Order: sequence, then C-alpha cells, then structure tokens
Amino acid sequence: MEDHIRFAPEDAVLYLLDQRYLPGREDMFPCGNLEQVIYALQEMVVRGAPAIGVTAAFGAVLAARDVLNEHGNKEGWEEALDLRLNALADARPTAVNLAWAVNRLRGLWRERAPLTLEALIDLWTAEALLMQAQDIAVNKRMGRHGAELLSHGDTVMTHCNAGALATAGYGTALGVIYAAHGQGKDIRVIANETRPFLQGARLTAYELARQGVPVTIACDNACALLMKKGMVNKVVVGADRIAANGDAANKIGTYGVALLAKAHNVPFYVAAPLSTIDRNMATGEGIPIEERNPLEVTHMGGTAITPQGVPVYNFAFDVTPAALINGIITERGVLLPPFGPAIARAFA
Amino acid sequence: MEDHIRFAPEDAVLYLLDQRYLPGREDMFPCGNLEQVIYALQEMVVRGAPAIGVTAAFGAVLAARDVLNEHGNKEGWEEALDLRLNALADARPTAVNLAWAVNRLRGLWRERAPLTLEALIDLWTAEALLMQAQDIAVNKRMGRHGAELLSHGDTVMTHCNAGALATAGYGTALGVIYAAHGQGKDIRVIANETRPFLQGARLTAYELARQGVPVTIACDNACALLMKKGMVNKVVVGADRIAANGDAANKIGTYGVALLAKAHNVPFYVAAPLSTIDRNMATGEGIPIEERNPLEVTHMGGTAITPQGVPVYNFAFDVTPAALINGIITERGVLLPPFGPAIARAFA
Repeated sequence: MEDHIRFAPEDAVLYLLDQRYLPGREDMFPCGNLEQVIYALQEMVVRGAPAIGVTAAFGAVLAARDVLNEHGNKEGWEEALDLRLNALADARPTAVNLAWAVNRLRGLWRERAPLTLEALIDLWTAEALLMQAQDIAVNKRMGRHGAELLSHGDTVMTHCNAGALATAGYGTALGVIYAAHGQGKDIRVIANETRPFLQGARLTAYELARQGVPVTIACDNACALLMKKGMVNKVVVGADRIAANGDAANKIGTYGVALLAKAHNVPFYVAAPLSTIDRNMATGEGIPIEERNPLEVTHMGGTAITPQGVPVYNFAFDVTPAALINGIITERGVLLPPFGPAIARAFA
Repeated sequence: MEDHIRFAPEDAVLYLLDQRYLPGREDMFPCGNLEQVIYALQEMVVRGAPAIGVTAAFGAVLAARDVLNEHGNKEGWEEALDLRLNALADARPTAVNLAWAVNRLRGLWRERAPLTLEALIDLWTAEALLMQAQDIAVNKRMGRHGAELLSHGDTVMTHCNAGALATAGYGTALGVIYAAHGQGKDIRVIANETRPFLQGARLTAYELARQGVPVTIACDNACALLMKKGMVNKVVVGADRIAANGDAANKIGTYGVALLAKAHNVPFYVAAPLSTIDRNMATGEGIPIEERNPLEVTHMGGTAITPQGVPVYNFAFDVTPAALINGIITERGVLLPPFGPAIARAFA
C-alpha cells in the first residue's frame, strides 16, 4: 500500500486515498492547489504524522504553483509563497512532521537561492518525491530494528493507525509488525478501535487484513481487561511528536494504554522516525494538543448519537511520559531509557 | 424518570422505554409474555443491574400468566413455571440482580404454598410492584449517603449508565449525583461514552441533561488525559455484581477507569444496592463475564464501521478489584475497606 499518496507532476495533482471513508469506500481525493491540501490535512482525508509530512511536501509544491499561476514571476512572489508555507505549516498543530517537511523545503530554497519560481518548483518536486521514497526506506529500517523486539506467538496491541496509511507506505508501528510477520514469526494484533475517528477499527484492521496479519478489533475500553487476561504481550504505537526527553504525543488514549500496560507489566514501545523527534521541545508539557470538531464525537455516519445540546471533549492527542516507554524504535535502532542521552546520540 | 418500566396489571403488559433508540426516539416496547421479556433483556431494550431485577420480577408474573394461558390450573403447572423461571434467570449471566429477583419470587411462592396459579399471579404482581417501589426508595437512600462524598465544585466522572434508566428510577451512581445536585452543590459530570452500546453518551447524558445537571461527554479513551489535566475530582460508577470481598463487576472499561483513577489519585466509588452483592461469590474471579454479539462493535446504526471478516472482542463487563475501590455506596451507608468485614456487617 505505497500508492495512497500519489503525486502526478505533469498535471500537478496530488491524489490522496480518502481515509474518511475506508474501509467502506476506496475513493481518491484530488488536490490541485494548496487550499485543497490544507482541507485534506484538517479534515483527515490523510492523517498520521509521517503521511502528513509527505503530504505537506507536495502541498508546498502546489503552493509554489499557485503563486506562479497568480503572480507569474513578478516581484514579491517570495513573500506570497512564504505566507502560503506558513498557512501550510499551521494546518495541524500536534504532528511535528508537518513543520519538519516545510522547514526542509524552505532550507533547500535558502540554500540554492537565488532561484526562479519555475526552478524552485522543479527542485521541490524532486525533493518531495525523494522525501516520499525516503520515508518508506526509513520505515523499513525501523521495521527491521523493531521486529527484534517481537517474539514468535506474540499478540501485539496497537492504538490508532501507525501503518502504511499513516506514512508514505509500510508504516511505523505496523511496519514493525509487518517486518516480524515477514520473518515468519506468528504475530497476532489487537487493534484498539480508537474513537472517535476509528482509525484502529477502520484503517489498522483494513491494512493488516490485506497483508494477511491476523487482527482482532477491540473497543478502547476493553484494553485493561485484555491485559489482565494475559491476552496482550507487547504494545507498539506510533507518535506525532517526541520531545527531547522521550515524552511522546500520540493519538488520544495512548497515554491510558501506556499506564495500563505498566500496571500489567506489558512492554510498551513507540515506533517513530527521527523526524518525529522535536529536539527544541524539552518535555512533552510543551506539545500543543489539538482539539477537534465535536461533531466527530456526537455524530456517526451523519447520525447523532448523543443528546442535542450536550457538549463533548474532543482532545485529539495525549502525551505519554518517557517513564512509561520501554523503547523508542527508530531507523537508527531501538533507543532505550534514559531517552535524553539516547536521543542526543541518535542525532550525533 | 420513574415510568420507564411500567406494568399494567389489568391487561398484563409490561411497557419498557426502549433504550436502544434513545436519545433519538422515545419508544415504548410492550412485553405481553415471558419470551418478549427475555428478548428485551438480551437485546438491551432495558439494561442496568437494578432495572434488570425489576424487569425480571414482572417477567416472572408474565411467565405465570403464560402458564395459566397454556395449562390452566392443570396438574404440572408448577414444573412448567419452574422451567420458565430458569430461562428467565439465565437471560443474562453477569448481573446478580436477575437471579436475586427470581429467587425472591420463588421464595415467596415456597413460603405461601400451596397456592393456586391465580393466587400466585396476584401475589407476585403485588410483590413486583413493591420491588419496583423499594428500588426507588433504596436508590434515594444511597443517594443521600453518597452525596456526602461529593463537594461543591466537584467534577464527577461516570462510566456507562447507572441512572434512573438503569434502575426502577432515580439511579445508583447518578442517584448520588442527583442527591448532591438537589442539595444545591455545584456538581459537573463527565460521562464516558461507553462503547460499544454508548450508554454514557446516549443514556447518562440524556437523563442528566433532562434533570439540569451539567454534563460533558468524552470518548472512553480520553479518561487518562482528563485525569492528568486535573479535570476529574471523583469517579462514581454502578455495579452489576459485587463479590463478598468487594471486587465489583461493571460495564467493560470500568476496571481501566479504576486503574487510571488510582494512578492519578482520584477517589473511585461504586454505588450499588445490597441486592447487587453476591455473598456466595468469594471474589470477582468467579463472576461470569458475558460476551455479546460482535455486531455491537462492527456496526453503528446498521452501517458497518469495520472491514468485513475481521473478528472483534466484545466482552460486556470487567471486574474491578476491591483494592482499587475507595468506598461502596449502599442504602445502609458507605462501606469502607476492608470490604469483606464491611459487607458482612451490612448484612448483619
């Protein structure tokens, strides 16, 4: 599943597999300009930290094309493009990969300046395609490192979707599972359904089943019982941003799973590329937590499931303290506590 | 809301507010025979341990009427009725109130024997109506005791629905909240939505809003974050069966909430009438945990939300160990740990 983010340079359209309607419908959502890319990010047509990063890179290419269409090469195109890149970087607050991708393209622009707008578009197009290919390669390296942590016969619980659909392809947490499965280990997965957007029930179950990995879905609130019954050997999840001390922001509910894993002596691992680590963020306390539209909680398939007028909380992420994490699986190997020094070494 | 279980003795019909369709629709589900009562219990037209008990009492009356209609007063009616009572008692396995109600009516029958079937029907009808009235009175006493645990300004988290709809009226956990609210304390509630049946989002939010108690809905997996943010001062939940040592079976997810409450130093209370305590069950290990239809998890309003063919876990209950419970609120006062002796004293 490496074709869910597909950029067609000749007609400058970014095609995204619309994750809002999976597994029921497999529709492609075409983005012909920056506005459509921002919509796709905010409405979760595409989601998952590394997938957001790659989508943003193509979004920057479309932003540059928008400027070319509106301004041509007229003076001031740099400022116009800069404003658009800011809007793109602000599309969602929690995943650091969004800013990381935009910064990488900005850095390249600065490095090669002066450039014509046309030359910049060509340069960024090549770079975005490279970032997409690199993300898959990085995931496969993470998968190999992480697979060493999984044993034949393990049942692995995962939360949300940190799979092929959350990346350019292959996946972070699910990449670890795919790698172990590919080595012939008998690995079973429990996918927490992950309310309200149901990434686990819809996306994780969908891609694992497609790849032939045995998967069972459970409601989020069954986690403690399943662990108490001895039905979970390991937990592996992704991350949207990791602070310099190892605190990890991920989908709402992850922190609870980590606490319950600790209470039941189940090892808890985070799988994320180094691009997810925000070394400017000392601890998880500083990571902004996105609050999303209440309609995600109050409605299901357009039908109200809650009484009219009753408010809801819809925090989209939480932060798991480093103390609850047994290892961070990266493309440079599995980082072990204490994470501060381990992270510093990984970037050295 | 004391009319959601309404028995009309003259035409021998039990009307149940159909909780499957709340809050969207307020339909009454009429039961004219035992089979319909068992259907209503199993399909969760009515649910909640004390409500199941009261419904079962009226179910026994309808069972006796079924026997009268089929057998008249012919020899052997006792055995025919006995078989039907067994089927009623087995309708759902976890809530002890079902067996408790059937046993109470059986005991009365034994005590007054010999009786004609017609006389037994009259006796049981009066007893079932008494049980309904007693349940409400017991809830109000529990509410008064429990309200002393809540302070002005508290935000109370609750899981599932242990309210008027889960009892003959008023409620156990929500009864405590109604009592504190009635005393003029400013109490706010966070209702966990409680997948898969959404009793929290649909029923708890519905009845609290109707009573003017401020309530906010959260997905089950937000629990840990809300506690970490200091947004939860107390947890109060109901119970379906409590063992002699204080271990408490309740809706799936309760055990996780209790562990998370312990980790965040949030007091965790169970509110349940003494009829919920099964003194024949030494610990929670022996309490049978019902597994329900996977369709509850895989479908929402008739629409599939999971990939076809992927299995699900649908355990309906879990057991919270006594060690995680700060107090059990009963009609005889708040029992404190160690619960074994406290429970023995409450029955003395």
